[in-house]
Amino acid sequence: MEFLKVDSIDTAREKLFASANGWMAAQEIVPLAEALERILAEDIVVCEHVPTFRRSTVDGYAVCAADTAAAGEGIPVFLTVKGQVEMGQPAAFVLTSGICAEVATGGMLPDGADAVMMVEYAEPFGADGIALYTSVSHGEHVVQIGEDVKAGELLLPRGKCIQAQDIGAMAAAGIVRVPVYRRPRLSVLSTGDELIAPEQSPTLGQIRDVNTNALTALAQKIGFEIVHTALVADDAERLEQAIRAAMEKGDIVAVSGGSSRGKKDVTRIVFDRVASPGVYTHGLAVRPGKPTILGHDAQSETLLIGLPGHPVAAMMMFELLLGWLWRSLTGSSPHPAIPAQLACNVAAAPGKLNCWPAKLMWTGDSYLAEPIFGKSGLITVLTKADGYFTLNRESEGLTAGQRVLIHLF
Amino acid sequence: MEFLKVDSIDTAREKLFASANGWMAAQEIVPLAEALERILAEDIVVCEHVPTFRRSTVDGYAVCAADTAAAGEGIPVFLTVKGQVEMGQPAAFVLTSGICAEVATGGMLPDGADAVMMVEYAEPFGADGIALYTSVSHGEHVVQIGEDVKAGELLLPRGKCIQAQDIGAMAAAGIVRVPVYRRPRLSVLSTGDELIAPEQSPTLGQIRDVNTNALTALAQKIGFEIVHTALVADDAERLEQAIRAAMEKGDIVAVSGGSSRGKKDVTRIVFDRVASPGVYTHGLAVRPGKPTILGHDAQSETLLIGLPGHPVAAMMMFELLLGWLWRSLTGSSPHPAIPAQLACNVAAAPGKLNCWPAKLMWTGDSYLAEPIFGKSGLITVLTKADGYFTLNRESEGLTAGQRVLIHLF
Repeated sequence: MEFLKVDSIDTAREKLFASANGWMAAQEIVPLAEALERILAEDIVVCEHVPTFRRSTVDGYAVCAADTAAAGEGIPVFLTVKGQVEMGQPAAFVLTSGICAEVATGGMLPDGADAVMMVEYAEPFGADGIALYTSVSHGEHVVQIGEDVKAGELLLPRGKCIQAQDIGAMAAAGIVRVPVYRRPRLSVLSTGDELIAPEQSPTLGQIRDVNTNALTALAQKIGFEIVHTALVADDAERLEQAIRAAMEKGDIVAVSGGSSRGKKDVTRIVFDRVASPGVYTHGLAVRPGKPTILGHDAQSETLLIGLPGHPVAAMMMFELLLGWLWRSLTGSSPHPAIPAQLACNVAAAPGKLNCWPAKLMWTGDSYLAEPIFGKSGLITVLTKADGYFTLNRESEGLTAGQRVLIHLF
Repeated sequence: MEFLKVDSIDTAREKLFASANGWMAAQEIVPLAEALERILAEDIVVCEHVPTFRRSTVDGYAVCAADTAAAGEGIPVFLTVKGQVEMGQPAAFVLTSGICAEVATGGMLPDGADAVMMVEYAEPFGADGIALYTSVSHGEHVVQIGEDVKAGELLLPRGKCIQAQDIGAMAAAGIVRVPVYRRPRLSVLSTGDELIAPEQSPTLGQIRDVNTNALTALAQKIGFEIVHTALVADDAERLEQAIRAAMEKGDIVAVSGGSSRGKKDVTRIVFDRVASPGVYTHGLAVRPGKPTILGHDAQSETLLIGLPGHPVAAMMMFELLLGWLWRSLTGSSPHPAIPAQLACNVAAAPGKLNCWPAKLMWTGDSYLAEPIFGKSGLITVLTKADGYFTLNRESEGLTAGQRVLIHLF
């Protein structure tokens, strides 16, 4: 039995980033309607003002604000209505003092006008006039040229995970082809002679494969494309075949199980057979997640990751390594973490990054984080959790009431 | 000019829920691999133990824990290795005192064994023996029968938004066909003579349509299926045609623009033409979002919602009404809101629910929420925001430093 020589999470991440940088973050162009939750690969700078004309934000009358200054509840100001601005058309006339024009929400202000009086405060008066009982100030109820977006301005930065409102902003600016990072193509393999597919019934000694489905879903949520999945026996030849097939299809091959140093643990051996320079990290100072393998094939530009067979550890390490890598390469941010107070004491294994699944409880004023205790082989540990927190390797633990940051799953 | 008779948000929601309850939350069965982020329509109760046998969580030796009690660093205990448990097979022998068996992670414990000694603490000794230098306690490194999930236990509750770990748990329990709520089928229409498609270039007075793309993306994020989109002129006949076409395709028709009481605002009139009982709410005590219309056609079971043309207001009202409705019908929860301290004072319009887009800033210790001030016609107001907070109608405003809850977009 050979012991693992562990890397810290920081060292492992540095090596991982170095092995992926320069090739993994390729770009592609997608139509605006397909850009939701993709990561922007370039700064979006607009080349024209939005709007290109002065727009009314209300239904009412375009006026010269100075004309209305004297209006009050008892002392109306009277203006002549010169006409009506047609929606979607340039205003066909120029206003001068004493003259106003009807304009609907979104309509263009005529030259000479500098504010809009809401229709609620205007009363028809005579054949072509209105009486105003309140004043408006210069610019009131008007969106100025370029007020939404100025030409040359940064609309959205590279690395932003595109949300619905960002799609709206790009629509406003006429950006209908969006440069995003191509989704990394991932294969997920699970190894273990004891594993059967979820739709099968286990006999004594068998167990259904959890990791293929769980890691596939987690990867999709992070933003990866799944190109291949397989369930493979603990056999070096079969695993080698399966990994070589997966390497032809994608950018990353994740193998769960067989990542330790036991007799049956062949993942590392196979990684070193199929990849050059091969494995650069085997063993991490993380709990749970020690038996994790990182490797790299330079020629085919493929990352290889061997994950623990225990589901909790496999998912945690996938998020802490590949989730982190994706965000680092694309400059994107994780969801904001939620500050919470620990509901009970937790002990930490010193010298390791400790990861705790936790459930959030709202007290009416703040969040309590209840760590979920349980073996890392139990998938239900995670179903009870809303997220996780980490304690770094200097920490010996925390006591109830101390503050932790919950990263949501 | 007729004024709107406004409903409070609570009243509007009650009416909306009543008009949708009983038909909108239909169920369907999806394969496990397609269940990510769908909402569970039934409690998931498992009918068998997971695991069905006692499993080792480490590579090592299955032992009778009592045999190891006397072991210490200087005083080893010697055990005879009876054989090896094959992975995926029932253990073919029974252990008695003084006897142990090799077992790998995930392997079945033989009868008679009650703990596993990690391989790291065992040394080969003689032809078929090992020497142990530490003790293990009863149950150590063992997952008991049903320890992950017990037969009859609730695995996941109705209303849960299915996450990767939930997919893993269902895989473990053999649940490969998942009952979820069918996605509501939504049509998104935008009206306005001044609107052009985002790929077109505006002439003076024209503006690109923001809401179709922004609302479509927001709806997809909430979990809706988009069945139809259209850009329609401010014309009652054309809008009626478009709405009737949309009503044939789906469960909800959302129309942005034309929702106020101006000359060009025909949405309400058309809703009352095409639907019976028709409009039940026109006007909400919400800022922004006052010109919002809610209606219902009982025969075709279609919800009709008229949203403000201003993008910020349209998106806010979509989330506060249809997002809320979907969560209420399915029993699902929004993402946990994030407590933050206001970075500056905000004034509230009394008598209304006030909604403020806000940017979150992490101070190293807690979050500051910086309200984004800007006209509701400006889409970039939302691109700068991470989420929003609300002030209820009793509030007259908040001062810098007070606590708000940020709902993430």
